[in-house]
Amino acid sequence: MSISATPPIQPFAITFGADNATLEPQGQVLTRRMSDLEGLFADADAWARAVADGDPVVYTVVSSPVPEVPRELPQSITTIQPGLTAGEFWMTKGHQHPDPQGEIYLGLAGHGGLLLFDGERAEWLDMSPGVIGYIPPGWAHRSVNVGDEPYKFLAVYPGSAGHDYGWVLEHGMGLRARRAADSGDLDLVPFGTPAGRHRTGKP
Amino acid sequence: MSISATPPIQPFAITFGADNATLEPQGQVLTRRMSDLEGLFADADAWARAVADGDPVVYTVVSSPVPEVPRELPQSITTIQPGLTAGEFWMTKGHQHPDPQGEIYLGLAGHGGLLLFDGERAEWLDMSPGVIGYIPPGWAHRSVNVGDEPYKFLAVYPGSAGHDYGWVLEHGMGLRARRAADSGDLDLVPFGTPAGRHRTGKP
Repeated sequence: MSISATPPIQPFAITFGADNATLEPQGQVLTRRMSDLEGLFADADAWARAVADGDPVVYTVVSSPVPEVPRELPQSITTIQPGLTAGEFWMTKGHQHPDPQGEIYLGLAGHGGLLLFDGERAEWLDMSPGVIGYIPPGWAHRSVNVGDEPYKFLAVYPGSAGHDYGWVLEHGMGLRARRAADSGDLDLVPFGTPAGRHRTGKP
Repeated sequence: MSISATPPIQPFAITFGADNATLEPQGQVLTRRMSDLEGLFADADAWARAVADGDPVVYTVVSSPVPEVPRELPQSITTIQPGLTAGEFWMTKGHQHPDPQGEIYLGLAGHGGLLLFDGERAEWLDMSPGVIGYIPPGWAHRSVNVGDEPYKFLAVYPGSAGHDYGWVLEHGMGLRARRAADSGDLDLVPFGTPAGRHRTGKP
C-alpha cells in the first residue's frame, strides 16, 4: 500500500514491530528536529545553541497508511531520542485535538512520560513497555523521554481528532519535566518556572 | 478505578499484560458461552449438542474502564478458546458498527483470523502476535481462532461506534472458516455452504 491510503480503505494487515518500532506497510514519516521545537523549551538560549550545533533530530513519527480523515482510526509509532536542553528532557511539541476525542499511547521501549493538561490541571503518567496511557477528550498531550535510551510508543487516535499545536504555545502544558541537578531524578516543575531555576521536591 | 468510569474521564494508566492478556485496572468482563452463539454456526444440530454438553465458554472480552460513549476510545482484550463445531472454527458473534467507524485489532497470542464483510465482499486477514488488523468503517467483523491455543487480541475502537449483532444474523459474514477434513488446514468456504459439505481449495 502506498504512502497514504485514500478512502474507502480496504481491510488490510499491518505488521507491528514492537521491538524495532516499525509498521509495515508504512505511511508518512515525520521528522522533528530541534529547530521545529521553537518556543517550547524553557531556556530559549539553550534551544538556539542546540539548533546551531547540528539541529539534532528530537523525534520521529512513523504512521500506518490509514489516513487522518473522519471515521478512520490511524496509528503511528513515535520515537523520542534521549536528550536534555538546559536540564529539560526532550519531548514532543504536544498538541490538543481541535475535535475533542480520546487517544491511547502504548509504551513499546524505553522510559517516558505522558504529560496531559486540560488548561487548568496537569497530569503526568509514567510510561514504559506494557503501559497504556489514556488521553481523555479535551486534554492536550505531550510525550517526554525521561530515560537514557530512545522512548517509543504506539499511538491510536480517531482520524477526525486533528492536531492543534498552537494551543500548547498559547497555554503551555502546566508542568515541565526536568532532570534534577542533584539526584538526576525526574523533577516536574510548574510551567512558569524560569529556566535554570531549580525546585526541590515533586509537585 | 471502578468497573466502568463515568465521563469526564481523567487521564490514567492501564497496565497492559500482553502475555497473559490482562488490563489493569479492569472494567467489564463479558463471557460468551456456546448458548450465546445461536444461529451462527452452519450446523445448528452440532451447536445444540455443544450447548447441551456443558455449554462451554467460547470467548471472553475484558474491557478497560474507559466507557463506550461518544468521544472516548475504549479498549478490550478478547480471548477465543480453540475449538470446532462440526468442523467450523470457534469464533466471536461478529458485529457491524451502527455508526461506521474504523477499529484496530492487535494480535497478542495464538493464531487467529479476522473475517470482514461489507455486505458484498468478504476479506480474511491472518492474525498472529504483532499483526494489526485494520477494520475500515462499514465492514462487519468477526474473529476466529484457527489454532490449537487460545487466540488473544487487543481491540481499540471509538466509543460511539456501537455493536450491531443482528446485522450478522441477517446478512451473514460472506465466508465461514472451517478446518479442512483432509489436510487440517484452514478452509474458507462461501457462507451458504451447507454444514458438513466440504469444498476443496481456497476461495
